[in-house]
Amino acid sequence: MNLKIAVLPGDGIGPEVILQAKKALYAIGEVYNHEFVFEEALMGAVAIDKTGNPLPEQTLNLCLNTDAVLLGAIGDPKYDNNPNAKVRPEQGLLKLRKELGLFANIRPIKPYKALIESSPLKREIIEGADFTIFRELTGGAYFGTKTLNEEGTHASDLCEYSEEEITRIAHLAFKSAQKRRKKLTMVDKANVLETSRLWRKVVQKVSEEYSDVKLDFLFVDNAAMQLILNPKQFDVILTENLFGDILSDEASVITGSIGLLPSVSLGEKNALFEPIHGSYPQAKGKNIANPIASILAAALLLEHFGLTKEAHVIYKAVEKAIEYKVVTVDLKPDSKFGTNEVGEFVSNFI
Amino acid sequence: MNLKIAVLPGDGIGPEVILQAKKALYAIGEVYNHEFVFEEALMGAVAIDKTGNPLPEQTLNLCLNTDAVLLGAIGDPKYDNNPNAKVRPEQGLLKLRKELGLFANIRPIKPYKALIESSPLKREIIEGADFTIFRELTGGAYFGTKTLNEEGTHASDLCEYSEEEITRIAHLAFKSAQKRRKKLTMVDKANVLETSRLWRKVVQKVSEEYSDVKLDFLFVDNAAMQLILNPKQFDVILTENLFGDILSDEASVITGSIGLLPSVSLGEKNALFEPIHGSYPQAKGKNIANPIASILAAALLLEHFGLTKEAHVIYKAVEKAIEYKVVTVDLKPDSKFGTNEVGEFVSNFI
Ligand SMILES: CC(C)[C@H](C(=O)O)[C@@H](O)C(=O)O
Ligand SMILES: CC(C)[C@H](C(=O)O)[C@@H](O)C(=O)O
Repeated sequence: MNLKIAVLPGDGIGPEVILQAKKALYAIGEVYNHEFVFEEALMGAVAIDKTGNPLPEQTLNLCLNTDAVLLGAIGDPKYDNNPNAKVRPEQGLLKLRKELGLFANIRPIKPYKALIESSPLKREIIEGADFTIFRELTGGAYFGTKTLNEEGTHASDLCEYSEEEITRIAHLAFKSAQKRRKKLTMVDKANVLETSRLWRKVVQKVSEEYSDVKLDFLFVDNAAMQLILNPKQFDVILTENLFGDILSDEASVITGSIGLLPSVSLGEKNALFEPIHGSYPQAKGKNIANPIASILAAALLLEHFGLTKEAHVIYKAVEKAIEYKVVTVDLKPDSKFGTNEVGEFVSNFI
Repeated sequence: MNLKIAVLPGDGIGPEVILQAKKALYAIGEVYNHEFVFEEALMGAVAIDKTGNPLPEQTLNLCLNTDAVLLGAIGDPKYDNNPNAKVRPEQGLLKLRKELGLFANIRPIKPYKALIESSPLKREIIEGADFTIFRELTGGAYFGTKTLNEEGTHASDLCEYSEEEITRIAHLAFKSAQKRRKKLTMVDKANVLETSRLWRKVVQKVSEEYSDVKLDFLFVDNAAMQLILNPKQFDVILTENLFGDILSDEASVITGSIGLLPSVSLGEKNALFEPIHGSYPQAKGKNIANPIASILAAALLLEHFGLTKEAHVIYKAVEKAIEYKVVTVDLKPDSKFGTNEVGEFVSNFI
């Protein structure tokens, strides 16, 4: 197979973890005779520094015209703590999601056996947990009109949803549930928000086409609690953009480290693969960032293109790295292995 | 002391847990010679059933003219799963918060020694955790304009904040931090939301008056993770309405049961005390609901009026109940004690 992949290393630890993902893909390409052509482009703070624009035209065009996008991470504290910054790294990512129409972000959560002890949660709580979060990615308060009055004393964010936006991701989530344990939990705040009530209504309607899937509803406050009290109750979770952002980061504690979790964002035509962790600027260049989430993002990419066998080789390699404790300090505080060593181990295993 | 207290038992388990809180207050009144006059009124689904209005005029007037409000819980699934319901129990609570100007909801989180094992989190993670969440309660998406188009295919919620709304709760939170470990963590999503950027700016400004308090910022997705990974890092958490709703329910897992957590909501003139749990309709009338959160809400009420000694007698009584395992099934699955027995134990101890 020939695949042209746009690579956006981004900020902070982005470039170093993405390098390991590329190494894994190169190794797969060699062994299984595929050609992966990587083309790098700028996005995030690094793009602002070089071009003034967090998503330069060139980057967007590249992403629109490749088979897939592999993203590191974006974000820089110099923008976070400056409420007056006019341009921000996140705008690049949000614009990219919007322009590529990546409406569904999918985050699988499942603890590794060898890592059960690294979770802050007790073994009996997390052992056997296995669920996937479907987060809507191009709507809600992320994209609604924002205002700030001239005096800078009043601000607003509009959260909006349409039936169509909800329907399309609901279908994906129900289809996934059909292939899993046939349970879908819709998370919302329908006792307070109008958009949540629309979600409930539309999802109820879509559910009629999936009578083999059991649908239930949880308020987001309760869901944030249930994720920790009893994560095994979940199979597929479906939710809007901001709730999905919060709950999927929270759910990462089940696996022991956010450094292990990849995600895929899907649109009608495009697909983007990334670790769910952020740019972790404090770790930049120190060879301590966990590359596994990025390597697994590469595996999700392979699966997406039907290269299931190849993806499974990567999963296996990652499992071995974890089993042999070739992991970074987030998973083993006294580890002597760094980003590079973990990446090396994985690509050598392939 | 003479106190006139409006009691709103509300829905589901509300009435039965509030009864135990009243019993505790009666006992305190007798022993310490205070007169507590309770006046009951309707709010929530029960008020809709009887009057068509989730917050009848009479209830509101009562609450405006008493020293304090003691609330059980509100909410009923018959409204939750009906996206077309025009009147909902929650509207009563939200209106009450707004009319009483209860802008700050304060939720202290601290595990009981004797209950450390009931938490899904490991002992070493939660032992020593002790923080308070300041949740803004009368602004944000809860109260902004909501729309639904005629065809019912497009909905919106507006999240709004003004400098004034942020300033007043920020002062309360900083003052509390000064009396504690002098650390305040502002939780927001300033990399995406305009309102969050306003929060950051205003809180930074307010912080100049509290130079002894260390201020830091966390994005809400990261905060949802950090609460579980390392809850000991927090002292005072300050956040907007919806984030506070989610994070405080999540934080309840640290204590092992949401049935243990009370909260106080403060305005310029009024104060409302309630358990943070919901109406838990499945448990209604079964004598299994945990009354401790409501009893502790009564203790917070006493503290609020300077009756510190009396409040501490209740804290002590609750500790003893927990120590002697006179607790409900949420804390001890094979417990033979119910709502009444726990309440009896506490008021007898007083
Ligand atoms: C960087 C940020 C804008 C982003 C988000 O909130 O969507 C990130 O947290 C994520 O989850 O991908
Ligand atoms: C019942 C509901 C409207 C309420 C809220 O979201 O504020 C509850 O969850 C709470 O936290 O007090």
